Amino acid sequence: MAPKEQQDPSYRILHEADLRAYLADVPAIAAQLGGAAADWAITEVGDGNLNLVFIVKGARGGIAVKQALPYVRLVGESWPLPLSRAHYEHLALVHQARLTGQLVPAVLHHDRALALTAMELLTPHIIMRRGLIEGIRYPRFVDDISTFMANTLFFSSDLALTAAEKKEGIAAFAGNHALCKITEDLIFTDPYRVAEQNRWTTPWLDATAQDFRDDLDLHVAISRLKLKFMASPEALIHGDLHTGSIMVTQDQTRVIDPEFAFYGPMGFDIGAVIANLLMAYLASAGHERAPGDRAVFEAWVLETVEGVWSEFARKFLVLWRSEARGDGYPVALFPGEAGTARLETERQAYMARLFQDTVGFAAAKTIRRILGLAHNLDFEAIADEKQRAICEARALRLARSMMLEAPSFTTIDAVTKAAREVRDWQPEFAR
Amino acid sequence: MAPKEQQDPSYRILHEADLRAYLADVPAIAAQLGGAAADWAITEVGDGNLNLVFIVKGARGGIAVKQALPYVRLVGESWPLPLSRAHYEHLALVHQARLTGQLVPAVLHHDRALALTAMELLTPHIIMRRGLIEGIRYPRFVDDISTFMANTLFFSSDLALTAAEKKEGIAAFAGNHALCKITEDLIFTDPYRVAEQNRWTTPWLDATAQDFRDDLDLHVAISRLKLKFMASPEALIHGDLHTGSIMVTQDQTRVIDPEFAFYGPMGFDIGAVIANLLMAYLASAGHERAPGDRAVFEAWVLETVEGVWSEFARKFLVLWRSEARGDGYPVALFPGEAGTARLETERQAYMARLFQDTVGFAAAKTIRRILGLAHNLDFEAIADEKQRAICEARALRLARSMMLEAPSFTTIDAVTKAAREVRDWQPEFAR
Repeated sequence: MAPKEQQDPSYRILHEADLRAYLADVPAIAAQLGGAAADWAITEVGDGNLNLVFIVKGARGGIAVKQALPYVRLVGESWPLPLSRAHYEHLALVHQARLTGQLVPAVLHHDRALALTAMELLTPHIIMRRGLIEGIRYPRFVDDISTFMANTLFFSSDLALTAAEKKEGIAAFAGNHALCKITEDLIFTDPYRVAEQNRWTTPWLDATAQDFRDDLDLHVAISRLKLKFMASPEALIHGDLHTGSIMVTQDQTRVIDPEFAFYGPMGFDIGAVIANLLMAYLASAGHERAPGDRAVFEAWVLETVEGVWSEFARKFLVLWRSEARGDGYPVALFPGEAGTARLETERQAYMARLFQDTVGFAAAKTIRRILGLAHNLDFEAIADEKQRAICEARALRLARSMMLEAPSFTTIDAVTKAAREVRDWQPEFAR
Repeated sequence: MAPKEQQDPSYRILHEADLRAYLADVPAIAAQLGGAAADWAITEVGDGNLNLVFIVKGARGGIAVKQALPYVRLVGESWPLPLSRAHYEHLALVHQARLTGQLVPAVLHHDRALALTAMELLTPHIIMRRGLIEGIRYPRFVDDISTFMANTLFFSSDLALTAAEKKEGIAAFAGNHALCKITEDLIFTDPYRVAEQNRWTTPWLDATAQDFRDDLDLHVAISRLKLKFMASPEALIHGDLHTGSIMVTQDQTRVIDPEFAFYGPMGFDIGAVIANLLMAYLASAGHERAPGDRAVFEAWVLETVEGVWSEFARKFLVLWRSEARGDGYPVALFPGEAGTARLETERQAYMARLFQDTVGFAAAKTIRRILGLAHNLDFEAIADEKQRAICEARALRLARSMMLEAPSFTTIDAVTKAAREVRDWQPEFAR
C-alpha cells in the first residue's frame, strides 16, 4: 500500500477573519489589494467540487484565494483527499506560467502548509462552459488553447528534456496519485460497471447505460486507455482540461485549476478539450429557442474542434523542428537533407499516433460525463429531461464509435463529420 | 539540467586492510565468515567495467563484497558515475529476492554511504557467458530465468500494483538516471552514428557499420525503441540482463548486478536474454574445433531461446490470471464467462505487443555489442578476426531484420527460424 500522507500540523481551514489577518501579513498581497485590510471585501465563491475559493477585493485591486480542504467538498469528510494537491497545482501553475505567460493566472503567493494559493483575480472572465451554453463564440480560443497545449506538453516531453530531467519531473509529481486515482476510477472504470455513484438521465438512457456496462469490446478499449493513462508519462499534463477549467473573455483565455497535473499521456489533455467542445456542440440542440437558431454557433464549435487539433499539431511540430533539445529522436541520427526529410516523416507518424490517443481519450471523457458521477452543465442545463437524454444519446453514440473505431478517424475532419452526422440522429426512445 | 548528486562525505574507497576492519565490525558478516578477521583471505576480483569486487573467505564460509567507484572503472576518473547506483542495485536486489527467492544472491549487508553491498558468495557458479562459449548446456536455465522475469516484472507492473504504489516505485528509482543514460547512449544512439567509442571488427565490418550509420529506417526504429525505453515505466526491470549478469551451475541460476534497474519496458529485459542467447548461437561457429562439433549445443541454445519466451509468457499469464490485484485491466469490467473469455483474448493481445517490443529490444542489444563500445566475449573470444567478423555479420543481419520487420516475427519460432537461416549465410567479404 502507498502510505497515507501526513497533514502539516499548522494546517487549518481559513475562515473570513483568519484569512483577512493572514493576507494582511503577505506584503505582495497587501500591495495588490491596497487600502486597509479591515476594508477588504471577502466572499467565498467556490462552486467547484473540491476547494474553498475566496474573492478578495481592496481599494486598488482584487485577488482570488484557493484553499484545499482535506476532503472532497462536494461529498464531505467521508471522502478524504490529500492537501498536497495544492502543492502540485502550484508546481503546475509555475510550469505553465513559465511556458505560456498570460494564459494562466499569475500566482501571487503560495503556502504549502495551508494548501493555499493566492492568484490574480480574473475579471470579467467567465467559465467557458457557461459561455458555450449561452451560445457565445470565443475568437481567441483556438489560438490560445493550442499555444497552451503545444508549449506545456512539448517542453515537458522527451523531445525537449533530457531523460534525467524528465525522470525528475515524473518523480516530482508522483505523489499526486490520489488525484490520478479519481480519474482512474471515475473516467476509466465506473461508467462501465455498476457503481453507486453513477447516474444518467433515466429512464431514457437506462438501456444505453446497460449496453455500455455489457459491451466487452468497450471494456477492452477503456482498459487500454486506462493503462496508457497510468503508465505513459509523456509530458506534464493539466489533467482536467475541460471547458470548466478555462476562463474566457472575447479577448483572453486563462487556464485554471491544474490540481490533477502529473506526467501522463498528452492525448488526455487534447482529448479533454475536444470532448468538451463536442459535448457543447451536441448539447446545443437542447438550448435552441427556435430550430436552427444556434446554427452559426454550432458551426463555430466544430470549426473550433478542427482548429484545436490542427493548430496544436502545427505549433507542436514547429517547436519540435526548432527546440528539440531532448534525448528523444536525437537529430544526430537524422543528418543531411535525407535525414531531415525522414525525421519529418516520422514526426507526422508520431502526430498520427498522438491523434489516435486523442480520439480515444476524447471518447472516454465524453462517456464519463453522461454515465458517470460528474456531469456537465452543457447537458444538465437542458431542463427538458427527454430532450437532454436525446442530446446525451447522440454524444454517447459518437463517443462509442470514436472509442471502438479510433483508427478509422485519421483526421480531425473525420471527427467533426461524424459529429455533424449524429447531430440530428434520433435515438429509438425519441422516435 | 538535472542536479549532480552529492557524494556522502564518509565515502572512501576501501582497500584490503580497511575492508577487513570494516567487515569485522559487521556481526552478520563476521558470523558468516567465521574465525579471526586477521585470517580472512581477501582478493579483489572485479572484472566488470564499473566496480570493485572482493571475495572474502573465512574459516566457515565466504562472501562477495561489491563497492561502487565514483567513476567508470574501465575508463577512469574522466568518466564519473554516481555512487547512488549501489543504492538502486540494493533496492532492486531486495525486490528480486522477495519475488524470486534463491534466484539472486542473498544480501548480507548494505552500506549506502560507502556504496557497498556484501552478498552470499556464489560458488562454484560461473558467468553463464563463459559456459556458453565452452559449449556447456544449462538444463535449469529456461525454468529459472523465466521465473525470474515473470515474477519480477509482473509484480512490479500495473497488473499487480495499485497506480499509487506504481508511481512510488517509479519515483524511488527515478534518481538512477545516470545509469539509464549509459544505455540510452551506448545502445540506442551511438552505434547508429559516428562516435569515438564505437568499434567493430575492422576492416571486414567497415561497410556494414557504415550501412547502419546511413540507414534512416533503422534510425527511426531505434529512436522509437529509445523513446519506449525512456518513457514506458511498465515494470521494475533489471536493466542489464545479459548472460554476463547471470551465474550458473548445472543445478542453479543466479541473476546478479541489477545496478541499471529502473521502471522501464519489460521487453528490454526479455530482449536482453534472447539477444545474448542468439549471439551465443551465432558465435558458436567461431568456436568449433571441427565443423558441426557444437551442433547439439547450438540446437539447445535455440530451444532455450524458444523456451525463454514461451515459459516467460506462460508464467506471466498464470500470474495475471491468479494475482491481478493491480489497477490495470480491472476484473470488475470482465464479469462472467463472457468477460473471462474476452479478458483472456486481451491478455494474448497484450503478450503479442510485449513480444514485438522484445524482438525490437533484442535487435538493439545485439547491434550495440557488435558496432558499439561494449562487446561480448562470445565474439571477442574468436581469435580469427575474419571468422569473428563472419559470425558478427550474421548476427547483424538477423538483428537488422528483427528491428525493421519486427511485426513479421509473430512467434518466437519465427525468430529461431531466422537465426537458423542466417547460421550459415556468408557475407560478401567471406565469399
